[in-house]
Amino acid sequence: MLLTEIIKFIKNGQSGYINSYFAEDTNITSPASLDFASQNQITFLEENNNFKNKIKTTKASTIILFNNKELIQITKERNISSIVVSHPKIAFAEILDIFDKEIIPESGIDRTAKINTNSNVGVNCYIGPNVFVGKNTNIGKNNLIYPGTVILENVEIGDNNIIYPNCVIFQNTKIKDNCIINSNTVIGSEGFGFIPKDGKWLKVPQTGGVIINSSVEIGTNCCIDRPAVGETTIGDGTKIDNLVQIGHGVKVGKNCAFAAQVGIAGGAIIGDGVILAGQVGVNNRVKVGNKVIASSKCGIHTDVNDGEIISGFPAIQNKLWLRSSAIFKKLPDLAKKLRQLDKK
Amino acid sequence: MLLTEIIKFIKNGQSGYINSYFAEDTNITSPASLDFASQNQITFLEENNNFKNKIKTTKASTIILFNNKELIQITKERNISSIVVSHPKIAFAEILDIFDKEIIPESGIDRTAKINTNSNVGVNCYIGPNVFVGKNTNIGKNNLIYPGTVILENVEIGDNNIIYPNCVIFQNTKIKDNCIINSNTVIGSEGFGFIPKDGKWLKVPQTGGVIINSSVEIGTNCCIDRPAVGETTIGDGTKIDNLVQIGHGVKVGKNCAFAAQVGIAGGAIIGDGVILAGQVGVNNRVKVGNKVIASSKCGIHTDVNDGEIISGFPAIQNKLWLRSSAIFKKLPDLAKKLRQLDKK
Amino acid sequence: MLLTEIIKFIKNGQSGYINSYFAEDTNITSPASLDFASQNQITFLEENNNFKNKIKTTKASTIILFNNKELIQITKERNISSIVVSHPKIAFAEILDIFDKEIIPESGIDRTAKINTNSNVGVNCYIGPNVFVGKNTNIGKNNLIYPGTVILENVEIGDNNIIYPNCVIFQNTKIKDNCIINSNTVIGSEGFGFIPKDGKWLKVPQTGGVIINSSVEIGTNCCIDRPAVGETTIGDGTKIDNLVQIGHGVKVGKNCAFAAQVGIAGGAIIGDGVILAGQVGVNNRVKVGNKVIASSKCGIHTDVNDGEIISGFPAIQNKLWLRSSAIFKKLPDLAKKLRQLDKK
Repeated sequence: MLLTEIIKFIKNGQSGYINSYFAEDTNITSPASLDFASQNQITFLEENNNFKNKIKTTKASTIILFNNKELIQITKERNISSIVVSHPKIAFAEILDIFDKEIIPESGIDRTAKINTNSNVGVNCYIGPNVFVGKNTNIGKNNLIYPGTVILENVEIGDNNIIYPNCVIFQNTKIKDNCIINSNTVIGSEGFGFIPKDGKWLKVPQTGGVIINSSVEIGTNCCIDRPAVGETTIGDGTKIDNLVQIGHGVKVGKNCAFAAQVGIAGGAIIGDGVILAGQVGVNNRVKVGNKVIASSKCGIHTDVNDGEIISGFPAIQNKLWLRSSAIFKKLPDLAKKLRQLDKK
Repeated sequence: MLLTEIIKFIKNGQSGYINSYFAEDTNITSPASLDFASQNQITFLEENNNFKNKIKTTKASTIILFNNKELIQITKERNISSIVVSHPKIAFAEILDIFDKEIIPESGIDRTAKINTNSNVGVNCYIGPNVFVGKNTNIGKNNLIYPGTVILENVEIGDNNIIYPNCVIFQNTKIKDNCIINSNTVIGSEGFGFIPKDGKWLKVPQTGGVIINSSVEIGTNCCIDRPAVGETTIGDGTKIDNLVQIGHGVKVGKNCAFAAQVGIAGGAIIGDGVILAGQVGVNNRVKVGNKVIASSKCGIHTDVNDGEIISGFPAIQNKLWLRSSAIFKKLPDLAKKLRQLDKK
Repeated sequence: MLLTEIIKFIKNGQSGYINSYFAEDTNITSPASLDFASQNQITFLEENNNFKNKIKTTKASTIILFNNKELIQITKERNISSIVVSHPKIAFAEILDIFDKEIIPESGIDRTAKINTNSNVGVNCYIGPNVFVGKNTNIGKNNLIYPGTVILENVEIGDNNIIYPNCVIFQNTKIKDNCIINSNTVIGSEGFGFIPKDGKWLKVPQTGGVIINSSVEIGTNCCIDRPAVGETTIGDGTKIDNLVQIGHGVKVGKNCAFAAQVGIAGGAIIGDGVILAGQVGVNNRVKVGNKVIASSKCGIHTDVNDGEIISGFPAIQNKLWLRSSAIFKKLPDLAKKLRQLDKK
């Protein structure tokens, strides 16, 4: 693809095009990282990037930059073409999208797929080999359902969703539109509901459902359980990484991002725009406010107000945690000093 | 279902019926939570419940209550019928069971299931599409084995078990009776056994098996590994949530409950009635006594005596951990105070 | 198998044979653990083993020992045959291998497997029921691909690999030779790449791939994501336990061992021979040097030098962490003492 075509494309995108500098129009074969880019490849450099110095060594023929005179000057001196935008990473994502060669399977229902006669599949869907669809399930249009996925009864799937191989979608699940469910993820499995009685556990039937709103993406090997009554809900635009547990009856707001191995216990309520880093845990019935950011391995035991940045276990304000953690390392010295003072 | 019928049902159950108050017999359409119940629905309120005040606003027509005069009085004033029992949550679970509409698949072996001719399937089983059963495997009666599950050779499955879609059961696994294995869970995969030698890892063949005793429930995306020799064992009545790792050779006692993302390393021995909260880790070969309770994210490195309540990492007594954690937050102040005293 | 045959076998192995003591040649039926061994079974005792005393009670007829006069003397007195080697666990692993009765499926492509006509399968492979292989994929010789595994397009699989049931291998994955991929593991799923923009998340297409080098073993329910550009790489001989997350663009060196529930965030670089214990987390873009050992639940936020042993969160030197953790338990006492001193 010619550099001038790429520039035209970026101008029409969301990255905030500013300017571009190039000696001649060249052919760009593919995008690459700053480290590994070779001739005829395009790469990018984010603002405040630690790898700024790599601009002096990269072999890329074109770099997408933020508006920094010094860096633009270096690219000029090194005969590297540059495209200057407000958000280089967004421009790069748009270019990746052009070059993405993922094979979209052709629409049609594979002859080995087994779809209950009481269920419906909309137009322009791909239903792969060995897919199973139970009773009273409705699948809208333009969905891709990859091989080996099992969808049980009373499921509603909207339009334009992708469900990758070997997922399981249980009864009473609603998936709206434009969602991506990655492989081996299970949605709507029964919540972990047991009551202690005479040293044993009595089971609480989980008769509720799960609602996955639109533009949600869920990673690989995740679990989203259904509750005893009512619904577990994931809000519009929320993105969930791999191996994440969402307990029964949890309500997750819009546009959240949960990193891998996060676990949210039953009945917790998570606001909008919440970011949970890797391996964070949220206790059952805890309320986490809007735009809260929890750093990795954080354990959230009590309600958290809107906008807080928290860390540690039990979770406290991030700034305080950083200071306390720094002193934790010095505890042997502190204890020694205290003993000395005590002796005086 | 008529309220009087529900009351009759509860009287015959395990919740300890005490009394009931209602103006007229009404039709109950379904159970619901206190928050979301609407007219003609039944809900419940547990003892010591934080949501006690919601009894003043709920729209449910009937509430299951514990024996509390004040609360019974409020329901009377609000014209809400009430059923008073010792264990409202148990009564509610029993009612959920009545209203549960899960579709039980009809018995029969799907024509796409592949069952080795040396293996047996008992009467009244459902063997779903694309199920695979290897050599020398015996499956008892009344089992439901959902689509896509793969069962390899030399497996023994008793009666009345449910194995949800896309599970894998490896050789030398015994599953007794009345168990539930949730989707995408793997039982009997090879334990992580390697010996360091000259900078590489030599593999220890894992020739043992797994025994899942009766009335065990295992969540979604769990892993229960088989050991080099002998068995990994899960005791009767133990309940395991999602994404849990049980290492090779682990012995888990009876009636334990493990929350999501718990990890138990190889050779650990867990007593009866042990409760491990979310993301707890147990080190290899550690012994955890009967009725131990470990709070979330706890890391258990050394043996724990019967009945202890532990927290933190490394795990210490819960009460001590709460006090130490409270001081952790004040470490910057403590360090400052110590510096001041030192200067004097 | 006769004891003399077993001794001959061990002499030819890697355990460093030293000597053997036995009164008469006996038949050995199987290997077992020290605890559970019965007559005609063989067991072993490692150096520095806590279970040394069990040698006085074991019912095994033969024990593999390290070179310790006292222990050899005990076995003689108890009429137990002994085989003395430098590495008893290695000798035991070799014996397990002899007695391992795992059924290797016969080669052949099951008629329900669906292999794209543009793809190739080498000689002597087993391709199980319901396996799916997409476009432009090459599978070498002597591979075992178990039922229900889905392999998408543009995948390269070398020779002598085992892929257990219900795995998913995405486009642009290369698996070299002699690897084992355990059940329900997903390799090459799209990395978690999103850019915050106006309160929503813009997706970064993940067009890269994954390279699994030779002799790698990956556990059950693991996730190894592909990056936006370039490759996620696992080095030769690395062994990964269950429920492990390897983020997009991570580079893992050779001969590492990662225990269950480890999570490595995007772009991290892990050296050779690194050992990460259970539930360890590594932050994105962090560099972990060669031969680093991180103890369980460790959270690695910053680069770690070669050979360090680290613990805690944030990770610090293991020795320091042990001392600080010991004082953490005494914080209530320390705080009290400080208050007393302050009052004086």
